[in-house]
Amino acid sequence: MQHEVLVAVFQKRDDELCVLLWQRALAPESGTWSLPGGALGADEDLPASATRQLAEKVDVQELAHLEQLSVFSDPHRVPGPRTIASTFLGLIPSPSDPHLPPDTRWHPVSDLPQTSFDHGVVIRHARRRLAAKLSYTNIAFALAADEFTMSALRDLYTCAIGHAVDTTNLQRILRRRGVITPTGKTAPPGRAGGWPAALFRFTESRLRVTDEFAVLRPPV
Amino acid sequence: MQHEVLVAVFQKRDDELCVLLWQRALAPESGTWSLPGGALGADEDLPASATRQLAEKVDVQELAHLEQLSVFSDPHRVPGPRTIASTFLGLIPSPSDPHLPPDTRWHPVSDLPQTSFDHGVVIRHARRRLAAKLSYTNIAFALAADEFTMSALRDLYTCAIGHAVDTTNLQRILRRRGVITPTGKTAPPGRAGGWPAALFRFTESRLRVTDEFAVLRPPV
Repeated sequence: MQHEVLVAVFQKRDDELCVLLWQRALAPESGTWSLPGGALGADEDLPASATRQLAEKVDVQELAHLEQLSVFSDPHRVPGPRTIASTFLGLIPSPSDPHLPPDTRWHPVSDLPQTSFDHGVVIRHARRRLAAKLSYTNIAFALAADEFTMSALRDLYTCAIGHAVDTTNLQRILRRRGVITPTGKTAPPGRAGGWPAALFRFTESRLRVTDEFAVLRPPV
Repeated sequence: MQHEVLVAVFQKRDDELCVLLWQRALAPESGTWSLPGGALGADEDLPASATRQLAEKVDVQELAHLEQLSVFSDPHRVPGPRTIASTFLGLIPSPSDPHLPPDTRWHPVSDLPQTSFDHGVVIRHARRRLAAKLSYTNIAFALAADEFTMSALRDLYTCAIGHAVDTTNLQRILRRRGVITPTGKTAPPGRAGGWPAALFRFTESRLRVTDEFAVLRPPV
């Protein structure tokens, strides 16, 4: 039985949530697009393997968040010897533009090319997990720029979740929960002119559940 | 490389959160207590394997919830050939009293016997996941009786989370979020007499996130 690691790395690019894929040059399924990953090494655990394998496709310094997702264990998920896949979600902040090897490219999750084996299912699963976590954690810190306007943050939530989000409500709820903090600065006005927009930042850059039932928090 | 499944099955028993363990009769680590589980079979995926292996220790009809947790992949986590463990959280409702094989027993998670290999770490990890999910989902349905008083539900939250919870606040927040519903019935008065207590039930018996940011819900 073999064991591999697959990482779905997401980034917002040009108002699209994109995933990092590389194109297989050889059989099986040559020409299809695969998630970065590969066989678990003898002396490493899964998170170390995910980080190592990702380093072959993209500078992992750029990763702001990496978490384990489900294990894909269908006995016939790939041809050849049985291979179990441990999957991960990786997130890269908006302004990064990592250098990519020639076989690797960003693809909008709403318009995927032909993916290899069960990698399309893994991508959809990772995207659902991301959308769910956006609704009860501060995970958006790992996709956002250091400082952002509320309309930029709304665009980020909208493309990551896949449906429209209201800017005023988003600001109200994220500020009430202490997820974002005003920087006191404003963005330079856009081409359309108008009032300068306030800049915000994420209060923390580590994942936490932001709207747990207060009644269940441990006493201080 | 081998692959095994381990299941942390929790139930509230006598006001303690308990976990199901069996005692190893043979080396390695004979006499220590292990989570139910075993090697992944050639023709099954992980959830099927977890269900099958659990059936050897307890009637799986009693399981109200089963979900995948982390993979434990330290190269030296067990003696002998490298074995990767996919772990699961299983929950059994309060009033069930499953028949157990002679080597198997419920143990309070606050007072564990000597556990095998890394199974103690798996149990703590599963308990942390349970406590976290109690704070943003309706997962308590899988530990509660069909109908319950608020003080019984408070006792359940208290033992599962590990610190005191206020009954009035718990009722207010769970009713506001639609997690529990009054049945219109009352419990027979206890030995101490007093007013009959209202009975409640969980509104749904499928896991859902109950306090996602409303602003992020899909439009209807």
